[in-house]
Parts: sequence; structure tokens; C-alpha cells
Amino acid sequence: MAVELKDLTRSEENYSQWYNDLVVKAGLAENSAVRGCMVIKPYGYAIWEKMHDALDKMFKQTGHQNAYFPLFIPKSYFSKEAHHVEGFAKECAVVTHYRLKNAPDGNGVVVDPAAKLEEELIVRPTSETIIWNTYKGWITSYRDLPILCNQWANVVRWEMRTRLFLRTAEFLWQEGHTAHATREEAIAEATKMIGVYKTFAEEYMGVPVVVGHKSPNERFAGAEDTLTIEALMQDGKALQSGTSHFLGQNFAKAFDVQFTNKEGKLEYVWATSWGVSTRLMGALIMAHSDNNGLVLPPKLAPIQVVMIPIYRGEEQRQQAVARFEEIARELESKGVSVKIDARDNVRSGFKFAEYELKGVPVRLALGPRDLENGTIELVRRDTLEKQTVQQEGLVDSIVALLDEIQHNIFHKALAYRDSMITRVDTWDEFVETLNTKGGFISAHWDGTVETEVAIKEATKATIRCIPLDAEPEEGKCIYSGKPSHCRVLFARSY
Amino acid sequence: MAVELKDLTRSEENYSQWYNDLVVKAGLAENSAVRGCMVIKPYGYAIWEKMHDALDKMFKQTGHQNAYFPLFIPKSYFSKEAHHVEGFAKECAVVTHYRLKNAPDGNGVVVDPAAKLEEELIVRPTSETIIWNTYKGWITSYRDLPILCNQWANVVRWEMRTRLFLRTAEFLWQEGHTAHATREEAIAEATKMIGVYKTFAEEYMGVPVVVGHKSPNERFAGAEDTLTIEALMQDGKALQSGTSHFLGQNFAKAFDVQFTNKEGKLEYVWATSWGVSTRLMGALIMAHSDNNGLVLPPKLAPIQVVMIPIYRGEEQRQQAVARFEEIARELESKGVSVKIDARDNVRSGFKFAEYELKGVPVRLALGPRDLENGTIELVRRDTLEKQTVQQEGLVDSIVALLDEIQHNIFHKALAYRDSMITRVDTWDEFVETLNTKGGFISAHWDGTVETEVAIKEATKATIRCIPLDAEPEEGKCIYSGKPSHCRVLFARSY
Repeated sequence: MAVELKDLTRSEENYSQWYNDLVVKAGLAENSAVRGCMVIKPYGYAIWEKMHDALDKMFKQTGHQNAYFPLFIPKSYFSKEAHHVEGFAKECAVVTHYRLKNAPDGNGVVVDPAAKLEEELIVRPTSETIIWNTYKGWITSYRDLPILCNQWANVVRWEMRTRLFLRTAEFLWQEGHTAHATREEAIAEATKMIGVYKTFAEEYMGVPVVVGHKSPNERFAGAEDTLTIEALMQDGKALQSGTSHFLGQNFAKAFDVQFTNKEGKLEYVWATSWGVSTRLMGALIMAHSDNNGLVLPPKLAPIQVVMIPIYRGEEQRQQAVARFEEIARELESKGVSVKIDARDNVRSGFKFAEYELKGVPVRLALGPRDLENGTIELVRRDTLEKQTVQQEGLVDSIVALLDEIQHNIFHKALAYRDSMITRVDTWDEFVETLNTKGGFISAHWDGTVETEVAIKEATKATIRCIPLDAEPEEGKCIYSGKPSHCRVLFARSY
Repeated sequence: MAVELKDLTRSEENYSQWYNDLVVKAGLAENSAVRGCMVIKPYGYAIWEKMHDALDKMFKQTGHQNAYFPLFIPKSYFSKEAHHVEGFAKECAVVTHYRLKNAPDGNGVVVDPAAKLEEELIVRPTSETIIWNTYKGWITSYRDLPILCNQWANVVRWEMRTRLFLRTAEFLWQEGHTAHATREEAIAEATKMIGVYKTFAEEYMGVPVVVGHKSPNERFAGAEDTLTIEALMQDGKALQSGTSHFLGQNFAKAFDVQFTNKEGKLEYVWATSWGVSTRLMGALIMAHSDNNGLVLPPKLAPIQVVMIPIYRGEEQRQQAVARFEEIARELESKGVSVKIDARDNVRSGFKFAEYELKGVPVRLALGPRDLENGTIELVRRDTLEKQTVQQEGLVDSIVALLDEIQHNIFHKALAYRDSMITRVDTWDEFVETLNTKGGFISAHWDGTVETEVAIKEATKATIRCIPLDAEPEEGKCIYSGKPSHCRVLFARSY
């Protein structure tokens, strides 16, 4: 399990390989023996747990409760919502049998043809159908509304080309599913939750995002409106990082979920759904990391401060470790997570490189001279700046430094992202910008699916979103020249 | 979603129906449209989350890290460990295809025969095989050991007869999977973790358990030894509530996982696995509940104190609620979870019954006279004892009362359990005790599978465990009359 640092591909040489190397060598995840399914390793899972805990708290603070719905969905459920079946039922894992038996030739086991299911079960790619089938039993009156449920679960989408965290056949996510008495309330919920995602992305992950509406062509299958948060990676490509859907009455109608309103009349229920997934891990990695490895924002770092003793001989080692233990206790009492790495079988230089690779925000080193002088060596991962500081007052300054690093990581990403939003007014500029600079391109679009598809076919760029804060502005579509009333954001994306 | 209290079956009339009613009417879980799969409703899930959080903390305190492994396991993996395939590969969900297509007749979707998997995938019933296949890549030297991983996940076992929480096709659980350099270390780990389960069951769930070894016939498929915690339900039947397995080198050999030991020689790795599941919810419910509903131990109660205003008119309602809000703030500052139920559309008597059904440990009611007198009505759920107490000092006494309730629930269950362990020395006594009293029967057994199977066929009682603290005692097997060296515990079980 030793970390092999020498083989980390440089990002400017091959961004995609750099990303993959980083995920594997930092111990975040690896491919499994099952096509497209990853193993999330302890260090990667520890980051995901921190994401989970922060998001879960935010969901509860906004009035949501967790629940759990079945992994399997009867095949026929998908056909009940016409757009949904097109979007999801096609590439999916299908359970057809419920028993194996010994192979007639004595070698292993085979599917027992006698144990064929009457109706095939689909491993959930998303749970609107099974949940709305359940909500039918929960809702009769306006008094039963709203229902504000969230589920943490695994889902499966049979992707042909997979990449660790970014696109895997199985992934972990949360999916909120809410039911409301009015259209306005459901729209307000969908808007509130995309706001929660934006806050989480920016304040915890340190990743600035643009919030906007998806174009009709990029909407969730079955939604009337999809809101998205769009982040920018360091290679200039966008990453859709979370979505929140106003589903109208589509699923209520598909599953016949009606309620008696205050006036005693039957109405269909209004719905939202919203989700983020382990894809956020990909966004976190690609937004901040460098050629030395991960750069983790302190709020999501499993280890915030690592301490490495510098010594010759066991006595010096024990002295350094003893001092570290005092500092560790003080830091832990302030809620800082620490690790003392006193391993005797690897050099300290190797340890330095390992924790840089793992993105630990602050590294302390302490040798015999430091012990004499009351000093300590401190390196922050975001800038790699090294300084020798006094041990006195160290704990308070580390607490402040963690805040500063969190702030700095976000503002660095924000400055980069802002520098990568280019306003263009002609097709030539559009193509030129895409090919030389990348990033988001703010441009006029005539609002038609035809133009959107044509631009995608010509350039691989898609409309990432129609920003919520887009100012009305008259202009001409960069592709068709037809009139447009506001700019939208284009980009190539993951 | 209104609670229908009138229909709760009495436990002495039909224990099984009482249990099912309770689960459904208290809002814990319900059957889904998918055979054998349940929906865990928000209130039930909130209890499971508390179990999760407490266990997760205990696992981390004992040095374990969480990780995540794939949902799917290639069919051939099961055949690599001979006992394991017999135990698990038979009744399972089999994924054979990865795509649907529009039906030729235009009605819905059908499985696309062109999208047949080369090798079928099994939805994990347990993860030893996929995990040991992964560990092969993680382990080369003794320096890589131990590996102490846990996973929180859903698993699927195609059970023919299912019951909410107790036996469902899909269930939630955690499975620890550890790898060690020596036999002794693995045995110590398996023993440590069954100890963690015992502590959790007794200190959090308030459910006393007997720790012991399973008989060879009842071992986990692929284990050399299975340790179990066995609880007793109020109908006198036992419930296996958690198991911890010493797997020897069976999976290391099946997946060829070797390491270089300190002497430079190759050895197979030693393994353990251990798990508890949403079945614990069943144990929690059946161990303490009564004909009024759930009785939750305060440590696992989503709401520890419920406050119900008694009033005529809006002014009185607001006065009671205002006072409750002050008390709630104080309780919350001491870590107590509270709910004020000020709903105006249901009577307070209905609310009383509802929170009794939901097992909330403490209920407060406050009316105009209480406001005048500085008193409050307090009812504890475990004894249903009602008292009028002074508001002064209320918060401290509630904190102490929650501890007392936690203690009382456990000791009540312990006294019952202890009264239900019967020592018998003859076959007639054994049968008589089983049929009239139930509970655990402590009796001599000759140690053979034949006798165990014969007793099960004759009485439906199984050996629950050979208690860890069983004293050596010479005696004669109650069934065969052959010599025996210690007593084991028999019971009918869930």
C-alpha cells in the first residue's frame, strides 16, 4: 500500500491521466473487478463522509427527514412517465432471476431458469417512480403535505465509459423527493435546495458555482424545470455538480397521487427532486489539486493537521512525539483533527510527499533544534509556503490558518473561474475561445433546441445553464443570428 | 398519514400481528410494491440513524475505517469458497442484462436480449468475496496489515417469507472485514467486535444479550467460528442480533491473498467479518414495546421529550407554547431532543396516544392551571406513571429521568430474560419447558450435528449459542444421553 509518488502524471501533460493517478495514488478510490464499479477506499470515503455529514445537517435544518426506499423498481413503473422511461430505463441493470443452482457439470453455479421473475426488476437509477408509488399511500389530504424526504443511497446507471467518481456505473448519492400542495411551494423548494447546494459547494468544498436553469434539452427526464450548479475545473471544462428539479405534476399524474385541498377538491400533488453524488468528489479533486497532489479545503479534510517528528535515534523521536501529543490534545479540544505520523520505517521526506499528495492542509515538523528553540516548522498545503514559527500561540494561529486556507482555496478558484468567463458575440470568437482558452462562454442563443444541438455537434460545447442572475439583454444568437433576450453559459464539460 | 390507534392488535392475542401493526402504525416501516423489500419511513429511519451513529463511533474508536465496495459481485466469485457458495449464492438477485428497449408492440419496455452480460452479476448478499478480491491488491507485506475496514451498505437475500425489519429481501447493515497477520490477532478482533455489539445492544438498545459461539451447524458459510449475540423477545423466542466471524484463511486462500511476514516468508492472511443490520430494529421493538405501542430507550429515541399544550382558545395555546419553548431551549442546550406539538386540529388525548404509540420516553403537558401554579404534568413512557411536578428544577430532573428510564428499560428486560433461562436435564423437561414457558433452555448436548438436527426437527428449537462464559460441567445430552462437557442454550427463534 506504499504510495508511489514518482509516477504522478503532470496535469499539463495529460490532465485526464493526472486526475486518475491522483485518485488512485492518494488512496481515494480504484476500479473494481466489476465493470464500471469503483471501490471507494478509506481516505476517499472519509472525505465523502464529511460531505455527507455537512449536507445532511443542512437538509435537516431546512426541514427534511431521511427515509429509505427499495433498491429495486418494477420494470413497468418506468413506462408510466413517458420522458422518464426514455431518460433512465434504457441503460440499467436488470434483475431477471432470483436463484442460482449448481452447474450440471459440477463447475460452479448457474442461473436457475425455474427462478425467473414474472416482472423484471430494475436496479434504481433514480427513485422517483418507486417513491411516488409509495407517496400514493401517504397522501390523501392537504394536511399530509408537504412531505420532505431525503434518501442516501446507491444507484446504478449502466454507463459505457466510466471514470472514477465522475461517471461510474454504481455511485453513492442523496436524492430528495418532496410533495407539495401548490406549484409555487414546489418551485420555492426546488430553488431553496439548489441554494443549499451552492452554499455547500462554495463554503465547504471551496468550489464556486454558477446557479442556473438547464435548457429544455438538458433537463432531467420528467422535469418541468431543472436547476443546476455548474463548477469549472482547472482544465477549463465545466462540471455539473448538483441538480434540483421542479417536476410539476408529472409523477403525481403517472402514479395517480391526488389530495383533497382546503376547499375539498381533488388535485394532483406537485413535486421536486434534487440530488448530489460522489461526483462531487471529482469536482473537489479537479478544482484545487496540483502536481504534488490533492489540495483539500480544511472543512472536508479527514486530517487537518499532520505532525511529523524529525529525529536521530529513539530518544529524539520520543521527545518530538511527546511535544506533538501535547499540541494534538490542544488542537483536538478546538475541534481540529490531527494525526501524528511517528512511523520509523519511512523517511520524513517520504512522509512530507505523502501528506502533500493526500492534501492535508497543514503540516508540522519538529526536530531537536526546534525543541531547544521553542519553534516548529509549519507548511500550508495550499501555497506550499514554509515558515518556522514559535510554539507559543501555535494552536490559536493554526485554528486561524485553517480558516484562512479555506478562504484562500475558494478565492483562488473563484478568481480562476471569473477569469474564465468570456463574453463573445460572434461565432468565430466563440469557436476561437473554446479552442484556445476554454472555460465558460457567455453568449446569446436563440432559445431553440435545433441551435443548441447544432452548436454541440459543431463544437462539443453545451449550454451549461441560463444563469439565475442573467440580466435581460437584447442580442443576436451567435449561431443563427436570430434575436435573443439574454446570454447563456456555454462550455465543454465532463 | 393519521395514526389509527384503535386497530393495534393486543400482543397476547396475536404477537406476530401486534408486531406488524406496531411497525406500520408507529410509522417505522411498511411493505413496498417490490416483493420482500420494505420502505423505512422517516421515524423508523431516524432510529436507525441513531443506531448507525452510535455504532459508527464505536467502530472508529476501535480503529476501524469506513470504505465502500461494489453492489455487484461476479457470479464466479461465489464458487471460489465452497461453503460460502452453498450458504449464499442460491437465493439471490441475479442481474443478467444491462439494457431495456421499447417493446415491439409499443407498450412499455422489454429486456434487450442483445444486452446480455457475459457473466451474470449477483446483488451482494454479503461482501466477503468482492472485498477479498480487492484486498489481494492491497496486501503484499506484513506492513500492510492489519486492514480494519467497515462498510455501511444495502444487501439482498431472496427470502421466501419476509417480515418487516426481521427478514426482508433487501436490508441495510454494516459489515466489517478485517485482515490480519496472525490467527491470534484475527480471533482477538472477532472477539472484540462481538463485545462491541454486546455493549451497543445493552447500553443503547437496552436489550440484554448472551454472547456465545454458534454450533458448527449454525456457523456463517465460510467461517471457522461464529460468535453471536442472542436476545430474548417478550414472546419467549430468541433473536440472533449480531454476529462476528473468525474466517481463518478461507477467503485468503480462495482469493490467493498472501503476505510476506517479518521473516520474509509468504503466508495466507487471516480474516474476520462481523455485521449487524436493520434486524436490530425488530429486536428493539419486540424487546420493550407494549399494547400501547413502542417503548424506546432514550439513547435511541428520535424525540426524547414531547410537549403538548392543554388549552381553550388561542391565547392559552400561545401561553403554553411560549413556556414550552423556554423549557425546550434549556433541554436542547443539555443535548435533549424535544418536540412541541401545538397542532390545533387534533385533540390532546389523540396526541397522548400518538406519542405513546411512538414510544417517546417523556411527555409533558401544560395547561392554564399549571401556568398559574408553576407545575407541569409529566408522564414517563416505560411505566406510564403520571405525576405533577414543579417547573422549577424540571430540566435537571428530566435529564436524570432519561438516564433512569434507559436503566429501567434494560433492567426490566434483563430480569425477564434471566427469568426465562431454564436449566433442564431431561428430554421431557426440555419439551415441556419449550411448549409451556419458552425462553432459553440451558441443557447438555453431545456436540454432534445429528443430535442438533434431530432436536430441531422434533421441536423447532435450535442451539442459539454455546455461551462464552459457560462453565465446564459434566452431564448427559438431553436427547442422546451421551456425555457432554458443558451446557448450551436452546430456544425457538426468529
